[in-house]
Amino acid sequence: MGMVGGGRGAFIGGVHRMAAALDGQIELVCGAFSSDPIKSKESAKDLFIAPERAYSNYQEMILKEKALPAEDRMDFVSIVTPNHMHFSPAKMALENGFHVVCDKPLSFDLKEAYTLQELVKKSGLIFALTHNYTGYPMVKQARDMIVSGAIGKVRKIMVEYPQGWLSTLVEQTENKQAAWRTDPTRSGIAGALGDIGTHAENLAEFISGIKIARLCADVSIIVQGRRLDDDVNILLQFENGAKGVLSCSQIAAGEENALNIRVYGEKAGLEWHQMEPNTLWVKWLDKPAEKYRTGVGSLSSSSLAHTRIPAGHPEGYLEAFANIYRNVAMCIRARKEGKEPEPVYLDFPTVDDGVRGMEFIYKVIESGQSSEKWISI
Amino acid sequence: MGMVGGGRGAFIGGVHRMAAALDGQIELVCGAFSSDPIKSKESAKDLFIAPERAYSNYQEMILKEKALPAEDRMDFVSIVTPNHMHFSPAKMALENGFHVVCDKPLSFDLKEAYTLQELVKKSGLIFALTHNYTGYPMVKQARDMIVSGAIGKVRKIMVEYPQGWLSTLVEQTENKQAAWRTDPTRSGIAGALGDIGTHAENLAEFISGIKIARLCADVSIIVQGRRLDDDVNILLQFENGAKGVLSCSQIAAGEENALNIRVYGEKAGLEWHQMEPNTLWVKWLDKPAEKYRTGVGSLSSSSLAHTRIPAGHPEGYLEAFANIYRNVAMCIRARKEGKEPEPVYLDFPTVDDGVRGMEFIYKVIESGQSSEKWISI
Amino acid sequence: MGMVGGGRGAFIGGVHRMAAALDGQIELVCGAFSSDPIKSKESAKDLFIAPERAYSNYQEMILKEKALPAEDRMDFVSIVTPNHMHFSPAKMALENGFHVVCDKPLSFDLKEAYTLQELVKKSGLIFALTHNYTGYPMVKQARDMIVSGAIGKVRKIMVEYPQGWLSTLVEQTENKQAAWRTDPTRSGIAGALGDIGTHAENLAEFISGIKIARLCADVSIIVQGRRLDDDVNILLQFENGAKGVLSCSQIAAGEENALNIRVYGEKAGLEWHQMEPNTLWVKWLDKPAEKYRTGVGSLSSSSLAHTRIPAGHPEGYLEAFANIYRNVAMCIRARKEGKEPEPVYLDFPTVDDGVRGMEFIYKVIESGQSSEKWISI
Amino acid sequence: MGMVGGGRGAFIGGVHRMAAALDGQIELVCGAFSSDPIKSKESAKDLFIAPERAYSNYQEMILKEKALPAEDRMDFVSIVTPNHMHFSPAKMALENGFHVVCDKPLSFDLKEAYTLQELVKKSGLIFALTHNYTGYPMVKQARDMIVSGAIGKVRKIMVEYPQGWLSTLVEQTENKQAAWRTDPTRSGIAGALGDIGTHAENLAEFISGIKIARLCADVSIIVQGRRLDDDVNILLQFENGAKGVLSCSQIAAGEENALNIRVYGEKAGLEWHQMEPNTLWVKWLDKPAEKYRTGVGSLSSSSLAHTRIPAGHPEGYLEAFANIYRNVAMCIRARKEGKEPEPVYLDFPTVDDGVRGMEFIYKVIESGQSSEKWISI
Repeated sequence: MGMVGGGRGAFIGGVHRMAAALDGQIELVCGAFSSDPIKSKESAKDLFIAPERAYSNYQEMILKEKALPAEDRMDFVSIVTPNHMHFSPAKMALENGFHVVCDKPLSFDLKEAYTLQELVKKSGLIFALTHNYTGYPMVKQARDMIVSGAIGKVRKIMVEYPQGWLSTLVEQTENKQAAWRTDPTRSGIAGALGDIGTHAENLAEFISGIKIARLCADVSIIVQGRRLDDDVNILLQFENGAKGVLSCSQIAAGEENALNIRVYGEKAGLEWHQMEPNTLWVKWLDKPAEKYRTGVGSLSSSSLAHTRIPAGHPEGYLEAFANIYRNVAMCIRARKEGKEPEPVYLDFPTVDDGVRGMEFIYKVIESGQSSEKWISI
Repeated sequence: MGMVGGGRGAFIGGVHRMAAALDGQIELVCGAFSSDPIKSKESAKDLFIAPERAYSNYQEMILKEKALPAEDRMDFVSIVTPNHMHFSPAKMALENGFHVVCDKPLSFDLKEAYTLQELVKKSGLIFALTHNYTGYPMVKQARDMIVSGAIGKVRKIMVEYPQGWLSTLVEQTENKQAAWRTDPTRSGIAGALGDIGTHAENLAEFISGIKIARLCADVSIIVQGRRLDDDVNILLQFENGAKGVLSCSQIAAGEENALNIRVYGEKAGLEWHQMEPNTLWVKWLDKPAEKYRTGVGSLSSSSLAHTRIPAGHPEGYLEAFANIYRNVAMCIRARKEGKEPEPVYLDFPTVDDGVRGMEFIYKVIESGQSSEKWISI
Repeated sequence: MGMVGGGRGAFIGGVHRMAAALDGQIELVCGAFSSDPIKSKESAKDLFIAPERAYSNYQEMILKEKALPAEDRMDFVSIVTPNHMHFSPAKMALENGFHVVCDKPLSFDLKEAYTLQELVKKSGLIFALTHNYTGYPMVKQARDMIVSGAIGKVRKIMVEYPQGWLSTLVEQTENKQAAWRTDPTRSGIAGALGDIGTHAENLAEFISGIKIARLCADVSIIVQGRRLDDDVNILLQFENGAKGVLSCSQIAAGEENALNIRVYGEKAGLEWHQMEPNTLWVKWLDKPAEKYRTGVGSLSSSSLAHTRIPAGHPEGYLEAFANIYRNVAMCIRARKEGKEPEPVYLDFPTVDDGVRGMEFIYKVIESGQSSEKWISI
Repeated sequence: MGMVGGGRGAFIGGVHRMAAALDGQIELVCGAFSSDPIKSKESAKDLFIAPERAYSNYQEMILKEKALPAEDRMDFVSIVTPNHMHFSPAKMALENGFHVVCDKPLSFDLKEAYTLQELVKKSGLIFALTHNYTGYPMVKQARDMIVSGAIGKVRKIMVEYPQGWLSTLVEQTENKQAAWRTDPTRSGIAGALGDIGTHAENLAEFISGIKIARLCADVSIIVQGRRLDDDVNILLQFENGAKGVLSCSQIAAGEENALNIRVYGEKAGLEWHQMEPNTLWVKWLDKPAEKYRTGVGSLSSSSLAHTRIPAGHPEGYLEAFANIYRNVAMCIRARKEGKEPEPVYLDFPTVDDGVRGMEFIYKVIESGQSSEKWISI
């Protein structure tokens, strides 16, 4: 794999690298780690990349790698830059025949999203979007239980993603993560909504298998002086008639990274907390709640296929993230071998999830500015 | 005390009796326990009431008790009937000089609520409404911390009250509790909203000290064939600019009685769960979260005054309920002795909270039927 | 009921009174609340006792009450004094035909315990010992599940009771509770062991239905200057071959009242925490753990009979304590009416549990002083 | 790195590989993955090892690697075989100048342990033992808080490691993990004690910084037909006078991998659960308990140095395991560069911890067979 972004000082680049390395299936062979060529090469050296494959920019990387013999060149591009820099390298990679793994949200704006979707469709290439929370085994389990009808028809979905780290104007300190996320020229039209709200939306639709049909949003900038939303609360109506609430915030003081979801069906409610990811609560209508745990009892085949170690040996964020990379690697390998990938490896978010997320962002922002109650999506 | 309602087969009447008995300050001396005079007398016998004070109806109770010498007569009336039967006994009790403890919501409709408010004002009598959840020591603690500025200005309030017991049409079985709560002729215009949503509203305003200014509601009947709402989700805007969400449901399969609240301020977030009531989480922006516990460390004087036993000896629902009765008893005693009650005993919900709750119900129902986004309250 | 001890400033007396009052089945009609006659009468006044039944001492109480007509006199004596003052009033009450409820441990020494056991046997009177933790509904549930074979043969029992309140020499401050509990002339040969260790022993044998056969103890005084044990760790071997550990401590800094028990059988483990008493964990060998909750699903008839309010309305320490009083009251009433009590009401600890507890104390202290590994009990 | 053991079907080998790969600092370059040469080579192929470095056995691996130019040869050997196969490859590796990472317990018997300790001392080579639980950031934090005096003098340590997976005779099924662990010819004199009890011992001494001085053990085979202990309970006395209990079990039905520790000091108690590893409870004597979390507030420099991602992004078992590998890699790199390693990288268990663990095993087994109460260690 070749990486775009993720040089010294970046955060998510390191996460992608660890996730890619974990299972011994992917080797980082080249990169354009920074828009600053010197910094890019220094970062490459830190990462034991051969000097000749430490590129000055993504254009150089894509072109020079393409020029290598097929067995030597990188298999795919991993894009870990801020939002406004997803589109160009993704487009160029696809146009030059490289598969892509891209951080979320998909793009800076909706138009870019549609363009990428079109390109993926035309090229037939693999495009994975790192909505990493769907990589957790217990998220797979929840999805599979709903598909199987275990909880009956879904009636209500409560999903929330509170964080507290933007409770003050940290973007005006040295905090680079805060700086670009609150900057409309780099993040796009949404702040917290794009950064974490789309994870919540993606998780709710992934687990339930049901699409949001209408929404009504209250979009706020709570911290004075901030330029993008930092608190968003949304009423949801789903296609099957289910009701719901999505709340995301980066000013929820004292919260770490509390992505939580509850899905209530006719027979039971499911509950999952990202910060205790190896537990899935199944709360029955008329009998004791069950605590499903990774590795205990009979779990779905997909849940098992995304678990590495036995019950009680906690797997976490990086392992869930690695499941996306592992699946992508297995799909690429199958293609190279001219085979169909095992169906379980197809279980990762794609460009279509990315387009859906961008549409969601646009509709929520529209609703926030509207005096009309419900907006269709 | 004399009781109206709460005869054999009732639920909340027994709760009121246990709550009144716990502290040894209140004696149940008479009652009109049922609209059926025979059942009323049988219930009275179960409760060791003297036969001559087992009344056939509340009118008889109020008139005969009034006719007794002051030192013998009941000190106050406790009303534990379904919603549509709060008003008449409450009105008559007030008109005849008796203090009142009344179950919530205050009345069948808003007009009754205003009438009672007026009567209380004119009479100067004590009128306590059993929004019992505000009786918990850790709820007092949360309120007192916010008043003291410990968490800074309040920015966001998330309050929810999910239950699952109405996930099916239990009102069509023998379940009397379900039957009247889902019957518009007994419950009023609201179902879950009146039964539990008002508790959530009351708790949010009690703890934060801030009023809801505007709301936007999605009011649903999820279970087919039901006649009143069983799921309600509401976006909130508070007078001070804080945002919030209130969600209540009686179709949240697998939930017991999960009244939960989180209040986020500039410096910290508070979190309290009714089902683990002796814990209050204080989640600081920049240091480890603290687990406040009844009886541990320095708590507010009001919190301490509503705790009976040492740390680690769990107090629960009945003790919180009993705090309202104990406070009312202490206020009545102070009046009889011509003294001012200790300020801490004035800490119970009143007819004004009841009127507020009824206004809230009306505005939510209005919002649910409106295509306008925000409704002021 | 008439009370011995529990005057102003006492702790457990108030607990007994609230427990007795909760269900409206028991009236406190007289008492000898203090060894100081003036304080006794003042306490009686606080408690709305008729002045003529505010006695100067327990001897007077027992004799004068006995002299009253049967329908007027107290039905039983409740003894809530420190350990060294259990025996004499209990003995005199039994000898004069009064049933007894007595705080634990049963007595100051083992000889007293045997004497009381003999007296109870001869008199046929009811003698309840307030090992109150067995009053919790989920403790009943655990016991009933083991009896029914749900977890298979019991193999291991882990029971612990850590507290932290004696981490410093508080007995040298104004703390009266600490003073008598650490004083060999009032508490007997054991400190923490008698105060809380016996609760742990009683709970383990109650739930499992299996007796401790052999034990090996490390008995310590951790806080310098203390006169009785404050930390005790014991290896246990049970009659059926099961193994176990009992640990109790009053120097476990930061612990409140953390009585916890786990019982492992061939098929499942049970886990219960006194500080979250409405939950019983059932951890199966080969399927997800279940969270049993008071009021949810199918619970044992005994568990249900000791629950007052619906699921999710937490009951606590006082309610569990009240279950003992309620059961005693129902048994006394049945006797007065010449009936057999319902079997479920016979479920309270008796003088035999008290003798067992005293034997346990003696054997643990003996083991602590012995270089021999195992001591039989 | 070159690996001994861990071929197809093994468990811990894969864990070591993922742990070594995570941080991109270590490359698996060769291995002798099985005692079966064919299986070894197949495993090597799965792992993308060059065919010429897929060795038939560890002897071949060590000799051939040694013959390679220094810049090409493996830097260290990772030994992931069952206990009886640790000694020979470890000895040969050390004798041929290779650093070693070895799974625990150190060896089959105590004599081997002393031999290895001597060899390490003489050679000056790095020898890391994968007591991986000490790699968790919150374990470092606990250790550092005790060293700094935050909780005062340590008074009591409760450590336990219950598992349930050997509740039946699974060693007589296809379960290879169970088979060798319960086989005295492969596991040594101890079963559960060696497999998990030594982790508990290591953790208690690591966190507290205090050595066990005396112990009294009850060592049991609970499941009939088993050949090694499956349940062990031990009273502990520490060098500083602290008391404690260590309990480990593999027949604790329903438990997953519940390594838990509590350390009580004069001022506070610390509590950590392996299954929720990112939380450390600090329970103060006289103020609310604090929930320390990886990444929140001011943590020790060592804790921070062993954390990869921000608060609320759970790290788990593999990340803790990886901390050992990362530290070893950094120490080896420093040596190669002729530098002293940063002190924080020296924080991994060594052969001395391994010897300590073996001595502990021997003393516990001796105590289990003795009628004497206390055995010194």
